[in-house]
Order: sequence, then structure tokens, then C-alpha cells
Amino acid sequence: MSRAYNFCAGPAALPESVLKQAQEELVDFQGLGLSLMEMSHRAPEVVAVAKQAEVDLRELMAIPENYKVLFLQGGASSQFSMIPMNLLGDKKTADYVNTGQWSKKAIKEAQRFCDVNVVATDEANNFTRVPAFDSWNLNSDAAYLHYTPNETIGGVEFDFIPDVDVPLVADLSSTILSRPIDVSKFALIYAGAQKNIGPAGITVVIVREDFIGNTLPGTPAMFDYKIHADNDSMYNTPPTYGWYLAGLVFAWLKGQGGVEAMEALNRAKQEKLYSFIDNSGFYSNPVAVNNRSWMNVPFTLADASLDALFLQKAEDARLLNLKGHRSVGGMRASIYNAVPMDAIDTLIAFMSDFEKEQG
Amino acid sequence: MSRAYNFCAGPAALPESVLKQAQEELVDFQGLGLSLMEMSHRAPEVVAVAKQAEVDLRELMAIPENYKVLFLQGGASSQFSMIPMNLLGDKKTADYVNTGQWSKKAIKEAQRFCDVNVVATDEANNFTRVPAFDSWNLNSDAAYLHYTPNETIGGVEFDFIPDVDVPLVADLSSTILSRPIDVSKFALIYAGAQKNIGPAGITVVIVREDFIGNTLPGTPAMFDYKIHADNDSMYNTPPTYGWYLAGLVFAWLKGQGGVEAMEALNRAKQEKLYSFIDNSGFYSNPVAVNNRSWMNVPFTLADASLDALFLQKAEDARLLNLKGHRSVGGMRASIYNAVPMDAIDTLIAFMSDFEKEQG
Repeated sequence: MSRAYNFCAGPAALPESVLKQAQEELVDFQGLGLSLMEMSHRAPEVVAVAKQAEVDLRELMAIPENYKVLFLQGGASSQFSMIPMNLLGDKKTADYVNTGQWSKKAIKEAQRFCDVNVVATDEANNFTRVPAFDSWNLNSDAAYLHYTPNETIGGVEFDFIPDVDVPLVADLSSTILSRPIDVSKFALIYAGAQKNIGPAGITVVIVREDFIGNTLPGTPAMFDYKIHADNDSMYNTPPTYGWYLAGLVFAWLKGQGGVEAMEALNRAKQEKLYSFIDNSGFYSNPVAVNNRSWMNVPFTLADASLDALFLQKAEDARLLNLKGHRSVGGMRASIYNAVPMDAIDTLIAFMSDFEKEQG
Repeated sequence: MSRAYNFCAGPAALPESVLKQAQEELVDFQGLGLSLMEMSHRAPEVVAVAKQAEVDLRELMAIPENYKVLFLQGGASSQFSMIPMNLLGDKKTADYVNTGQWSKKAIKEAQRFCDVNVVATDEANNFTRVPAFDSWNLNSDAAYLHYTPNETIGGVEFDFIPDVDVPLVADLSSTILSRPIDVSKFALIYAGAQKNIGPAGITVVIVREDFIGNTLPGTPAMFDYKIHADNDSMYNTPPTYGWYLAGLVFAWLKGQGGVEAMEALNRAKQEKLYSFIDNSGFYSNPVAVNNRSWMNVPFTLADASLDALFLQKAEDARLLNLKGHRSVGGMRASIYNAVPMDAIDTLIAFMSDFEKEQG
């Protein structure tokens, strides 16, 4: 069967060329007579793959020397605990911005470890905009400020990096590598792989060195950044196959022209889709224009009773995984790096046809 | 290149037919036009794969109804913390048997959370036997007793299941599915996948239901068995691709005749290899005969200066990853389920030739 267009929010589309290379190499890696996933994480070939992935990620994101890059397990959900356990130090409180479902999960988990000061929330508006920075109730004694630059479910994105006096922590799961970002503004960035990096089961953490090594008592070894940093993310057996696939994605990104090229493409992709939605009387997106996500485009049909038909016809047209999150309803097109412009054009043509038939 | 014989201790050999099926399906899963690793963990096809893996594992191991089967991240190293965090309850101490490097890691991590009573250790003998059960210093007030039925590095294996009055916890990473085991004797069994189950990055936990739901304060959500059990191991995005591969291995095992067939094969494999070693004047294994591991066979050459040559010639003969762990030296042949009898025969022929040339 030909390849479908996949708008899944995560685990999400991967570049076809990456999948094909992985397929080619799956049974016999580099002519060694075995699969990479059958090799020790200490094997020189596996270590080389792991190191090259880090080198490429550092180059792609221009990560400064004084930051460690960790490849961990446990997803963003583990980071929700690891961040307070590693960054609180002697402080008893941390600042969190609440812009949607993922912010709320981070807040709920942090509350196990400290007093959480929610500096701003948009819950009253059903999470359709980022609260104006000048309205935030910042605490200068907070251990750090945590925010979610892009909310995957609501499709709400920050159009600024908060300029605060405390260390800045960001869940970049859905926007990492989608455009350049100034890493030096952050104490810590983390991202589950399954959107813009690779398969589920690996998490990238980029942490400034001076925020490593000060865990709370009772922190498990596996939740201590220092232990992972001191062991090049091989304190225990890492998810080698996911790490390898992430490396293939990084190499693909370099071949595409890096994050600058991705920025141009992603900007154009979302502009085209939002423009179509805005110019339609049938589809709509509720998010404030300057906070619309480049990666996750939720939209509703004028008549929600047509949702099921829309999804069925979309699937028939090989446009997959457009159903919105159950907490929001409607539709959502996630258009990460690996979703090509062709997918946007095909989706728009389909939406246009559907509107003509049903609108 | 033809497939090599892979004696890696972990990540370890996988069945060739499993790798070939994975290769076949990698780019296009079930004709859906996308890879399984690009699909939501909530997609019906992915949920079906995950559920079937659990069903097959339950059948293979005859897991009683009152046990939960969890598919988690973080490896055995995360279990080293999760076990005390979930099983201590009001107790302040736990019993641990020290039979080698993996026991020691489990003990060291547990010491973050409780007083560890080491009931027995064989460190004085350089971990070459399991301390006699009647010599153990058991504590009837321990929250549980933890042991490592097989030490992957030392190649030391228990020839009995400890009959104790406290809940029994076992790190079955390297022996799970290698033969039948009476799960009902255990409160909790855990196993990193990368030996007898699948690729690194997924961990199986089999836990009796009444040991779930009593975590220590400050336990991260991701370290709480109850949260994972209540969410069918999908509290967060699980490592779907590893879970799928584990499912392929379980299906392969059923096709091979299940753990009873594996027991017969594994018994014959290790008997042949140890017998060859014992009948040789050139190779030797230091482990007490009744504690020799079926899965990990360490051996030394009469002249250690020949080690490098042995390894080079073995590699030339497509016998890979025979180098012993750096903490032990010498050689180690790990002969998990996916290592066929042919590999044993070829290894023995090679060792015999090498002895004739060099011995």
C-alpha cells in the first residue's frame, strides 16, 4: 500500500527516508551480521551511533558547550518529576504557567515535591491563548519557572520566550527542532521523542551544567541528571534502537537544511492551513491568532454531526489521524517536521471538497 | 552478509524470524500506509498489539489472574527504586541476597529508601556460588526479600526458589521465559527486555495485585505501579515499538512450543557447552556446578595472554560478543532463547580448534 499522510499528534509521522533506511538496516546493521538492537550499548558501533546523534543534535540546535545533552527513558512524564527533584535545591516553591493539559500534568506532578505557584492560567478561556506576560504573578524566590511552549492538545503556542529572573524550564516535546531556538535562555529543555525526534521511548534533556548535581533526598538514581550525565546516558542500558532512529532523524534534518529550513517550511505549512481555515465559513480554529501552534492545528466543523463522516472520508482519502483529542473534540492536524507540504495541500483540497459537498 | 552468531549478554540476540517480520512491517504496518512507530498508542491497532503481547505472556508464563502485567520504561535499574518505593509500606527494612554485580546494584539503590539486610553474600568467593539457604540471616520483619535468580555477569544461578515468610521479589531479567517458573511464589517479578524479550527500553513487571497501591510519600507518578496498572501501562506514551517487538518474540516462543520447549533446548545447550569446557584442559568455568547459569556461560582460557587472539579469531569465524564483562575478564557466551543449538555447536567446534592450535 502507498504511504498515507499521517497527522497523528504523537507518536507521529517520521521521515519516509528514515524509515526506509531503518528497514534496510534492521536485520543486518553495517554488514555486521546482526541487528543494532541485538548489540551491546558498549559496542563501539553503537557508541558511535549514540555519540553522532548527540553531535548532530548539538549542531542542529547550536547547543552551548556548558549544556549536557541526555538521552533518557520515561518520557516527558518522568521529567515532570525529575525537574523538581533536581532543580528545587533548597527552595520550596516553583513557578508554573498553565496553558493547557500538558501544563496541568506538569503542575500536578510538581505538587508532589513543592508548592507550585501558578503564575498565570488561561483555563477561563478554555486554553485558547497565552496569558499576557505583564499579567503574570511571578515569584522571585521560585526555584525555576516551567512552561509549555506548545500545548499539543489545545494547539496553543507561545510567541515569546519568557524573560524571567529565575531559571527557565521548557517542555519542548512538540516544537523541538521545528525552528531555531536560543538554548542559552534556558536552564533546561526537555522533549519526548515521539513528535519531532523519533519513536516513543526516548526523551531528550538539554540541561545547563550548573543545574546538575543537587537532587532532593530520596531521588532514585534513575531520576538524577548527574548520574546520567556522568555516564553519557549509559548508566543503565539505554533504548539503543530509539536512540539510533533519533540519530537518523537528526541526520535527515541536517540534509534538509537544518532547523532554519524547517522553520521556513513549517511557517509556510501552518500559514497555508490556518489561512484556508480562516477563509472558510465551515471550518474554524478557536485560538488567538498570535498563539496558534505551528505544529498542532485543531479545527472544528460548523456542524459537529458531520465529524464522523469527515473522519471516515479523510481516512478513505489516506489522510489519517485527524481526530481531535477527546478532551477538546473536533479535528486536529499535527504537522510536525516529517509532514510534508504535499500533506497540507492534500488535506486542504480534501477539506475544500468536503465543505462543498456538505457545507 | 550472512547472519552471525551473537553471544551478547544484552542487548542480546533476537530470533531471526522476528527481525525479518519487523523489517517487513517497518515502513507499512498491516497495510495501513504508515509505520507502527508513527501511530498513536491509543490507535486500535496498537492497543491490539499491546493487549495481545500481554495475553501471550500470561499464557507463556501461566501468570495467575491476580497478578498485573506491566510494560514500563527505565530498565531493571528503575525497578531497583520502584520496588522499595512501592513495597516497603510501613516497614523500614528489606532483605537482599548478594550474589553478584546486579544484586549489589539493587542493594545500593534500595539503601536510599530503607535499611537493607543482606541475608547472605558470596563476595568472599568472588561470586561463584549461591550461599546455602540454611546459612541465610533472614529477618521476619523485612518488607520483602529480593534476589537475583541469575547473575548475568558472574554466570551464577539459583537452583532453588527461596521459601521465605516475607514477599519474594526477583530480578528475572536474564532468565525470564527460558523455562517454566511458578509465578505464584512471587510478590513481584521484573525483567529488562533486552535479554529474552525484545530490544532495550522496555521492562516487564509482574506484580501481585495486593502489592500495588501503597507507595512511599514523594514517589514520582511514573514510579507508582498503581498508576501504571490503572492505565494498562499507558499512563504516558509507552515505548510502542519495543512493546510490539516483545509481542513478536512472545508469538515466536509460542510457535517454538513455549517455555517447556525452551527449557528442553536451553538445558541441552548449556549441558553441551559446560560439558565441553569441563572436558577441556584449556578452558574453565569457576562456578559451582549446581549454580551454573543456563543463560550466561563465563569461561577462561588457560593462558589469558591468548584472550585477544581468541576473540579476534572468533570474530573472524562470525562468533560475536564473546568477551567477558570488564569486571570479570575472560570470555562469556550468553545463550538466551534466541541463540540456537547451531550456535553452540559452532562455538564448541571453534573452541576445540583454537585449543588444538594454541593449547
